[in-house]
Amino acid sequence: MRSEIIAVGSEMLTPDHIDTNSLFITEKLNERGCMVHIKTVVGDIEGDIISILESALKRSDLILLSGGLGPTEDDLTRSAVAKVLGRALGIDSGLLAALKERFASRGYKMPGINARQAELIEGAEVLENRFGTAPGMWIEDRGRFIVLLPGPPRELKPMIENLVMPKVERLSKGKQLAKRTLHITGMTESEVDSKAAPIYTACPSIQTTILASPGHITLRLQKQLDEGDGCEDLDSLVGRLIEVLGNAVFSTAGESLEKVVGRMLEERRLTLAVAESCTSGMIGSRITRVPGSSRYFLGGILCYSNEAKSALCAVPEALIVSAGAVSAEVAESLAVGVRAALKSSIGLSITGIAGPDGGSEEKPVGLVYVAISNGARSVHHRRIIPGDRETIRERATYFALSGLRRFMLDEP
Amino acid sequence: MRSEIIAVGSEMLTPDHIDTNSLFITEKLNERGCMVHIKTVVGDIEGDIISILESALKRSDLILLSGGLGPTEDDLTRSAVAKVLGRALGIDSGLLAALKERFASRGYKMPGINARQAELIEGAEVLENRFGTAPGMWIEDRGRFIVLLPGPPRELKPMIENLVMPKVERLSKGKQLAKRTLHITGMTESEVDSKAAPIYTACPSIQTTILASPGHITLRLQKQLDEGDGCEDLDSLVGRLIEVLGNAVFSTAGESLEKVVGRMLEERRLTLAVAESCTSGMIGSRITRVPGSSRYFLGGILCYSNEAKSALCAVPEALIVSAGAVSAEVAESLAVGVRAALKSSIGLSITGIAGPDGGSEEKPVGLVYVAISNGARSVHHRRIIPGDRETIRERATYFALSGLRRFMLDEP
Repeated sequence: MRSEIIAVGSEMLTPDHIDTNSLFITEKLNERGCMVHIKTVVGDIEGDIISILESALKRSDLILLSGGLGPTEDDLTRSAVAKVLGRALGIDSGLLAALKERFASRGYKMPGINARQAELIEGAEVLENRFGTAPGMWIEDRGRFIVLLPGPPRELKPMIENLVMPKVERLSKGKQLAKRTLHITGMTESEVDSKAAPIYTACPSIQTTILASPGHITLRLQKQLDEGDGCEDLDSLVGRLIEVLGNAVFSTAGESLEKVVGRMLEERRLTLAVAESCTSGMIGSRITRVPGSSRYFLGGILCYSNEAKSALCAVPEALIVSAGAVSAEVAESLAVGVRAALKSSIGLSITGIAGPDGGSEEKPVGLVYVAISNGARSVHHRRIIPGDRETIRERATYFALSGLRRFMLDEP
Repeated sequence: MRSEIIAVGSEMLTPDHIDTNSLFITEKLNERGCMVHIKTVVGDIEGDIISILESALKRSDLILLSGGLGPTEDDLTRSAVAKVLGRALGIDSGLLAALKERFASRGYKMPGINARQAELIEGAEVLENRFGTAPGMWIEDRGRFIVLLPGPPRELKPMIENLVMPKVERLSKGKQLAKRTLHITGMTESEVDSKAAPIYTACPSIQTTILASPGHITLRLQKQLDEGDGCEDLDSLVGRLIEVLGNAVFSTAGESLEKVVGRMLEERRLTLAVAESCTSGMIGSRITRVPGSSRYFLGGILCYSNEAKSALCAVPEALIVSAGAVSAEVAESLAVGVRAALKSSIGLSITGIAGPDGGSEEKPVGLVYVAISNGARSVHHRRIIPGDRETIRERATYFALSGLRRFMLDEP
């Protein structure tokens, strides 16, 4: 079943507002095996709503409209839908009585304009709104289904959950969407795709999407399940992808890298301290996003200045002069130093040039060193990261957490 | 001029991802007096992209498509646009050479699949992508304008700003949107609105929007200007709003709080060190987002554990036992201690309970203390911040930076 979501409201066409109702609607539809094919945001202009709805009816089976059901002049969803379907729109005496009653129960007289909210499209089933004055509607029209929903999330969500989803479930006849997600770090989008595409393109019944964000690639696999269908092919595809991608795959359970690293530390009964120069807190804040991280994270040092590197992480000043603040030697000295300062089992350090200034031919903007030490063993990794200052710092944070994960994988 | 934005990418039709490029595009179009009428999100399905674009061409003058320009099988924007316009799509030798050169300059051989990114639609003008491999395109077709843009924001934004907007400006013939923005911290949305609404509602020709995010309120004022119109009324409204909101307004120039605080430190020739417990790096990473922050930021200590508070910030263990790690006393001791450890002019500290666990009746989740010391004077602020773990930490970061700003305002 193809479905579309149309959000009505001019405020969602400004630079500060976004439609988020559709995320909730999508989640609920997906759980019933129903994919969303197209989402549209349209302003409070009747001609535009009509144009969008006409196109949607040509290509989709289920169309959900949110917003534009208020009492004012610019609430036009009801009239636009009635016009497109060629149905009458009139005051429903039952709805009007209920609306008046709702106002009366709060000690108000219903304002005249609210009578518009008692308008019902011919043949529509009313979806009761327990949290507001605008009722929703469910309309069946030549094999397609059109749903009108109020805009405010506190009104829309219970209506979707309690009134719309039971109907969608009957339409989707036990269909479900099965999903798997692979989270990958340490490879570029093209590297991942060149290894993964030959495998996933051989499974056309599974829809595979690749999504790149700084330092992190997501592979998402989805499959429509009919009643009685299993997920063996989905799991077998996941297995084959892991085979070619190796341990660049850090989670198949939707976990963040900081959560995975945290669990590894906890399982190994290790504690961690960090020394951050170019990221200056981004690694520490990522790690402590995870509730309970105090069980393995002791703290760290933001060694932004060279003086901080020497005074707090015991990096010899002479080493900074000879090797440079951004060097493998200083990175290792920082990792050893922060481990000693915080008495942790592992020290993780990062030093680099985030730009836009401070680069040279020999040490360009984007050059980053990460080092990890457990006292017995120290390793370091070097990389030149492309992008602007924030992208470099974001990727460097992934690079550091990824290095820590590899360190623990090598020595379980 | 009617404009539409079409975001291409199946990941934006899932419950976890949303198109945010359109917010940036809308802002830039609005500045040139051009409003957005419809926004659509469509998956990586050629038939759907074609259907959407065909409808858009019937009703709009300017259509901007973002995404679907990557090198993989599911990047279909180029071919869909070529089909709808009835134009040829072929490899452009100049683009191909530039693409190979881009890879070569980084020491890589261009993977075969990337050749697709050298495909150009017949008659299109190339929009150079300085931050990625997918070039954009500007196409004029029977009086309408179609723009193809890469999906990643770091590639899309400079292309919009530098290459697309100069063209839009010529099309919009001198119309402009004049804007003013007030950034506010330390007040709730209703506090701001109760003071500001009586003033801005008296100016109906200026559209005022209030936008709340954790720790931060934005008031945005907008006015459509025709050629020759001035901005006196806009500036006078800003003045009256600042009068009632006082120094809770930290910027009228679109600057972030960390940038404002950084400039204040630099103007006063002060240096800063931070001791972060509950935020564990969020303050340090915010401050160092600003290029050149090394001129005033020396570094800091992530004192997540009590041991770190004592060992690195010289907080007496007995004080932690008697007053508790989350207390005014420990916050002040941390500020004094980190200032001494890093030899900075100002020490800023934060300690709090981010949750979800660790709260008590006396010290609930959300309780946060911020302290600031310059050696001669120490102050602290206490607040109970509502929200989940991440919201509390985000607001606490604002609260700390805001406290630092007030400290400097009191002693210029």
